[in-house]
Amino acid sequence: MADELHDAILRFRASNTNRFVFVHMGDLCCSGGYYAAAPANRIMARPTTLTGSIGVIMSTINIAELAGKIGLSDVTIASGGNKDLLNPLRPVDTNHVAILRRPVQQLYDRFVGIVAKGRNLPVETVRALADGRVFSAADALTNKLVDCIGHEADAMKELRKLADGDVRIYGYSDKNDIRSFLESALIFESADGIIGKLKAALAEESTPRAEYRAR
Amino acid sequence: MADELHDAILRFRASNTNRFVFVHMGDLCCSGGYYAAAPANRIMARPTTLTGSIGVIMSTINIAELAGKIGLSDVTIASGGNKDLLNPLRPVDTNHVAILRRPVQQLYDRFVGIVAKGRNLPVETVRALADGRVFSAADALTNKLVDCIGHEADAMKELRKLADGDVRIYGYSDKNDIRSFLESALIFESADGIIGKLKAALAEESTPRAEYRAR
Amino acid sequence: MADELHDAILRFRASNTNRFVFVHMGDLCCSGGYYAAAPANRIMARPTTLTGSIGVIMSTINIAELAGKIGLSDVTIASGGNKDLLNPLRPVDTNHVAILRRPVQQLYDRFVGIVAKGRNLPVETVRALADGRVFSAADALTNKLVDCIGHEADAMKELRKLADGDVRIYGYSDKNDIRSFLESALIFESADGIIGKLKAALAEESTPRAEYRAR
Amino acid sequence: MADELHDAILRFRASNTNRFVFVHMGDLCCSGGYYAAAPANRIMARPTTLTGSIGVIMSTINIAELAGKIGLSDVTIASGGNKDLLNPLRPVDTNHVAILRRPVQQLYDRFVGIVAKGRNLPVETVRALADGRVFSAADALTNKLVDCIGHEADAMKELRKLADGDVRIYGYSDKNDIRSFLESALIFESADGIIGKLKAALAEESTPRAEYRAR
Amino acid sequence: MADELHDAILRFRASNTNRFVFVHMGDLCCSGGYYAAAPANRIMARPTTLTGSIGVIMSTINIAELAGKIGLSDVTIASGGNKDLLNPLRPVDTNHVAILRRPVQQLYDRFVGIVAKGRNLPVETVRALADGRVFSAADALTNKLVDCIGHEADAMKELRKLADGDVRIYGYSDKNDIRSFLESALIFESADGIIGKLKAALAEESTPRAEYRAR
Amino acid sequence: MADELHDAILRFRASNTNRFVFVHMGDLCCSGGYYAAAPANRIMARPTTLTGSIGVIMSTINIAELAGKIGLSDVTIASGGNKDLLNPLRPVDTNHVAILRRPVQQLYDRFVGIVAKGRNLPVETVRALADGRVFSAADALTNKLVDCIGHEADAMKELRKLADGDVRIYGYSDKNDIRSFLESALIFESADGIIGKLKAALAEESTPRAEYRAR
Amino acid sequence: MADELHDAILRFRASNTNRFVFVHMGDLCCSGGYYAAAPANRIMARPTTLTGSIGVIMSTINIAELAGKIGLSDVTIASGGNKDLLNPLRPVDTNHVAILRRPVQQLYDRFVGIVAKGRNLPVETVRALADGRVFSAADALTNKLVDCIGHEADAMKELRKLADGDVRIYGYSDKNDIRSFLESALIFESADGIIGKLKAALAEESTPRAEYRAR
Amino acid sequence: MADELHDAILRFRASNTNRFVFVHMGDLCCSGGYYAAAPANRIMARPTTLTGSIGVIMSTINIAELAGKIGLSDVTIASGGNKDLLNPLRPVDTNHVAILRRPVQQLYDRFVGIVAKGRNLPVETVRALADGRVFSAADALTNKLVDCIGHEADAMKELRKLADGDVRIYGYSDKNDIRSFLESALIFESADGIIGKLKAALAEESTPRAEYRAR
Repeated sequence: MADELHDAILRFRASNTNRFVFVHMGDLCCSGGYYAAAPANRIMARPTTLTGSIGVIMSTINIAELAGKIGLSDVTIASGGNKDLLNPLRPVDTNHVAILRRPVQQLYDRFVGIVAKGRNLPVETVRALADGRVFSAADALTNKLVDCIGHEADAMKELRKLADGDVRIYGYSDKNDIRSFLESALIFESADGIIGKLKAALAEESTPRAEYRAR
Repeated sequence: MADELHDAILRFRASNTNRFVFVHMGDLCCSGGYYAAAPANRIMARPTTLTGSIGVIMSTINIAELAGKIGLSDVTIASGGNKDLLNPLRPVDTNHVAILRRPVQQLYDRFVGIVAKGRNLPVETVRALADGRVFSAADALTNKLVDCIGHEADAMKELRKLADGDVRIYGYSDKNDIRSFLESALIFESADGIIGKLKAALAEESTPRAEYRAR
Repeated sequence: MADELHDAILRFRASNTNRFVFVHMGDLCCSGGYYAAAPANRIMARPTTLTGSIGVIMSTINIAELAGKIGLSDVTIASGGNKDLLNPLRPVDTNHVAILRRPVQQLYDRFVGIVAKGRNLPVETVRALADGRVFSAADALTNKLVDCIGHEADAMKELRKLADGDVRIYGYSDKNDIRSFLESALIFESADGIIGKLKAALAEESTPRAEYRAR
Repeated sequence: MADELHDAILRFRASNTNRFVFVHMGDLCCSGGYYAAAPANRIMARPTTLTGSIGVIMSTINIAELAGKIGLSDVTIASGGNKDLLNPLRPVDTNHVAILRRPVQQLYDRFVGIVAKGRNLPVETVRALADGRVFSAADALTNKLVDCIGHEADAMKELRKLADGDVRIYGYSDKNDIRSFLESALIFESADGIIGKLKAALAEESTPRAEYRAR
Repeated sequence: MADELHDAILRFRASNTNRFVFVHMGDLCCSGGYYAAAPANRIMARPTTLTGSIGVIMSTINIAELAGKIGLSDVTIASGGNKDLLNPLRPVDTNHVAILRRPVQQLYDRFVGIVAKGRNLPVETVRALADGRVFSAADALTNKLVDCIGHEADAMKELRKLADGDVRIYGYSDKNDIRSFLESALIFESADGIIGKLKAALAEESTPRAEYRAR
Repeated sequence: MADELHDAILRFRASNTNRFVFVHMGDLCCSGGYYAAAPANRIMARPTTLTGSIGVIMSTINIAELAGKIGLSDVTIASGGNKDLLNPLRPVDTNHVAILRRPVQQLYDRFVGIVAKGRNLPVETVRALADGRVFSAADALTNKLVDCIGHEADAMKELRKLADGDVRIYGYSDKNDIRSFLESALIFESADGIIGKLKAALAEESTPRAEYRAR
Repeated sequence: MADELHDAILRFRASNTNRFVFVHMGDLCCSGGYYAAAPANRIMARPTTLTGSIGVIMSTINIAELAGKIGLSDVTIASGGNKDLLNPLRPVDTNHVAILRRPVQQLYDRFVGIVAKGRNLPVETVRALADGRVFSAADALTNKLVDCIGHEADAMKELRKLADGDVRIYGYSDKNDIRSFLESALIFESADGIIGKLKAALAEESTPRAEYRAR
Repeated sequence: MADELHDAILRFRASNTNRFVFVHMGDLCCSGGYYAAAPANRIMARPTTLTGSIGVIMSTINIAELAGKIGLSDVTIASGGNKDLLNPLRPVDTNHVAILRRPVQQLYDRFVGIVAKGRNLPVETVRALADGRVFSAADALTNKLVDCIGHEADAMKELRKLADGDVRIYGYSDKNDIRSFLESALIFESADGIIGKLKAALAEESTPRAEYRAR
């Protein structure tokens, strides 16, 4: 989801040079939220925003020890040693961990690259910030992860100045709304400025997959 | 939420010099409730009000020991040492605590500053009161956290005198109501006096974040 | 709530000298119920009424020992030593108890004063009765906490005699009803006698706060 | 409730000398049921009725020992030693028991007096019967707690003879019905004979209070 | 209930000498079912009927030992030693058992008398059968507890012969139906023969009371 | 239920000599199902039918030991030693077992007699088969418990030949349907052949009673 | 159910020589599913079908040891040693197992015979395959349990060729549908080719009975 | 399901040479999802796609040890040693595992062949990749499991170029929709290009069967 939003924002900007994206962060704009926000022209945090948590994580629960205690055992017949990936009823297989660590690392590198390009920072600078930690608004500003700090009214004022004309406000309630808004924008080419309140409402799935997640 | 209300009240006052905000506290006006009330022109507590609890808190439950007892274990593959922030299934990592203590301290300093400015008190005076303790109405008055003590009828009488004319009473039932009321006030510039029954109905979220919370 | 009712009754009496308030107690009129009833002109108990329980109480459950047994632990990052007031997962902090004992004592003194004034008794007499104990109707009469004992029909008869004319009976079903009734009475100035069946329906809240409570 | 019914029946009889109340007991007419029945002109038990259980009881569960075992503890800040009356999480306080024993004893004496007057028996005779025991119909008759034994048809026949005319039968389904029936009877003065199937449907409340209860 | 049905059947028979009651038992016609059937003119069992269980029983569960184990204790303040009858949280009091044994014995004697009279047997004969045991149809016939054995069609044929005319069949589905049927019969005096399929659907109540119960 | 069906089938056959009953068994036609089928003119099993289980059984669960472990005890006040028949909270009383074994044996003898007469076999032959065992279709045929084996279409063909004319098929869905069908047949005398798919849908009751039950 | 379907298919084929049955298996066509499919003219498996599991099984859970541990005991009064067949509360009786093993073996022999006849294989060949194992489509083809392998479109093409004309497709959703379809086919004699997607939706019953079941 | 989709896609391509199938993968397109996608003309992964997990798996839980601990035992009467396949209440039988390993291996070989043919890769190359591991988009591209990487807008652009005309977009929400879409396509022959968002929504069944599953 975060990657799709990110791509939609990039295309929105690319479709017309006098369009731009202005992000005003909520109290929590971490991980996938920051991923989607990174390509904006300008990012304003609230004074109370927590942001950062740049990184990728996969996690699951292993119950092999519990199963042993209560007398459950797994009967698995599989065609290959890794088909049974992270079977929760068996002790953790280090090969399985290595197989999953690889896409985690690749997605992490992509995330770092996106932030570096979006924020116009050296990759090594981003990598040093991207150990998963969270930042207050003040520390995010110091580290150039955001451009300024302010309330919604400040964001509106700055947007009017930048858009140099009449700003239309769209109401949208969830991740699907913002996406269809951005997609319709791609087609009708009518809005000259938007405020994206990006909410990292990442879908929950039972299979382990890479997430840009704030614990 | 508290910070947004606080900002809206500040802008309301700033928009017209003969407007002011009069806060009449309920039985419990602590932490975020006091945060929002601080910029009011005048604060009246009830005789039975508890207020204070000035400070910031984050908390979560760690179940690493329980998981060990019953035989659950966490399998996490993360791109950085802090991505897995305060993972409840692992022993508490002191780096994680340090990362979160920083924004807690910054938000605390902001809270103290807001109270000092709103109540026109020296920062050091506020800091001495702001260790999280609660105050009775009488002690809050002694410490200048409120201006006076009275019932709703007293508040109404004093408001009529101050507003020097007809006071309009608006009914609003929750935090969203008061916010839209204040925002509409910014636009229509018609009300000359309001009573804010601020209720610190802070949104509950599962991720640890800074709160101005009365336990 | 009890303090608001108490204040409304005081204002009702003050608004017109030939108005008065007659309280007929139910089977249980303790603590906050008695608090609200105290300023009435006359109080009649039923022969089977339990009243009293004059005092203030705050209570919560501490589960630190339980948490230790099952392997849960609290992770709290707070800006001050008292922000984490009576955290149920940590051993009880004696400073926290002292902070809360202070408003309990102040509210208790207010309660004693209200009873002394309402019942026209010396403060020391009230203080001796106000250790939280409950009284039967007979003992309450002996101690002057009520004026007389009787059934609803007796109350009606006595009220007719005092009001010296036509008594209007209002039906009201809960604490909000009686309050709006008393408030409307303040405005329309039409009722000459009321029977208040005060029910101490105190709102339940999860935060510890002072209550006038019969266990 | 039992005391209110008792009072309503007394007033019904007092309102007109050629009215009377005839009670026909069900299979169980104990405690509060007998309390309300006592002032009737005549009481008929069924051959299978259990009656008696004259007395007053309060009871609650103390869980102090259980709480200690599982690691819960009570944190109570109260203004007086008896405000925390019979706190279930603390060992039973003998002062608390003494405070409650007093109204139990007073209500018991009132109950004994009501039976003595209603049944025209010496107080000492009633006191000897009123240790809480239950009586069969036969033993209740021997002890003059009832006047006769019979089925509903016998009750109807005897009532017709006493009322000396047309008996109207009212259907009512619960305690509220019988009460409103008796109250309307007080006002319209039209019924000359009633059969009260008194059901001791005592309201359940969580606070300990005196009850006339058959276990 | 059983005693009421029994009385209604007696009155039905007494109201007109050429009326009689014919009972056709179901698969289980024990205890209260037999109590109600006893006054019939004629009783036919099915070949597969179980009957008997003549006697009276009261029972409850005592949890004093369980409460001790888990740390619950009872706090009871009662006006007399027997008010707290068979308190399940306290060890069984032998006085309480003696108090209840008395009505059990009296109701038992009444039951035995009803069977002796209804079946025209010596009281001592009935007493020997009435130790609570159940009887097959054959043994019930041998012991004269029933008059004959047959199926419903046999019952119908015998009834036609006895009623000497047209038999009306009434459908009724539960204990209330049969009772109102018998009561209407008392008033309208129109039915000349009935088949009572008596079902001992005794009401379940939480208070211990005497029952004519087949376990 | 089984005995009633059995009786209805007997009467159906007796009502007209050119009527007969043809039973086509389902996959399970045991115990009470066989009891009802026994008087048929002809019984056809399916190739996959299980039948037999001829006998009578009563069973209940005794929890005396469990009650002792957890600290529950029974308080029973009964008028005779057998009123408390097979009380699950007390150790099994051998007298109680003997009382119940008697009707079990009598019902068993009746069952054996019904099979012997219905299938025209010596009683001793039936008794040897009637130890409760189940039989496959083939073994049931060998032992003359059924007359032939076939599918529903075979049954229909054979019935047409026997009934020598037009066979009316009635749809019926449960035990009540078949019973009312047979009863109406008794009255209207119109059907010349029926197929009874007897389902031993025996009513479940909590009191121990004799059953013809396949475990 | 499986045996009924099997019989209906046999009769369908027998009713008209230019009719035939073409089975196209789903992903799982085992045990009872194969039983019903065996008499088809032609059987096509999918490439991913599992089939086989030829055999008969009865199973239940015995809880005698559990009952002993928690203190439950069975009280059974039965007329014969085998009436209490496989009582789950008592240790397994080897006679009971022997009684049930006999019909299991007989039904197994019938199953083997049906497959041998339907697939035109020697009985001994079938018996060797019929130890309950499952087969992939390929192994089933090698062992002649199916005739060919293909997808639904292949089945349709082959059917059109065989039926030599217009094939009508009937939609049916469960076991009852297919049965009524086959039965109506017997009567109206109109369909010349059908595809049977046999689903072994065997009814679940609590009594142990022979099943053709894939675990 | 996956095999059916795979077959439908093959037939769709075969039905008209200027038709082709373009797959755009979602975040997770593993196992059965990849199986169905393999025959497409062209496969585009998202930058964040996880794919692979090529292989077959069957699994169930064995509770023999748990059953032994709590005192449950299995009573199974079966016609052959393998009828009771992987009975969860008995220790795992190695013959049973061998029986199931065979179709797992055969289905695996089929899966490998499908991938080799669909992607035009040597079988041995596929076999080396098909040990069940997952691949990131980048690694899948390196290993030729996909043809390119891009977002939905890229897929649309490429499709327009390939289809050389107007592309109709169909909305479909689940596996049934896509199947009926493909089937209707087979019949009406009107669409020239489709995008298949294949979701491996494999049906959950309680019987062990081969699955192409990503854990």
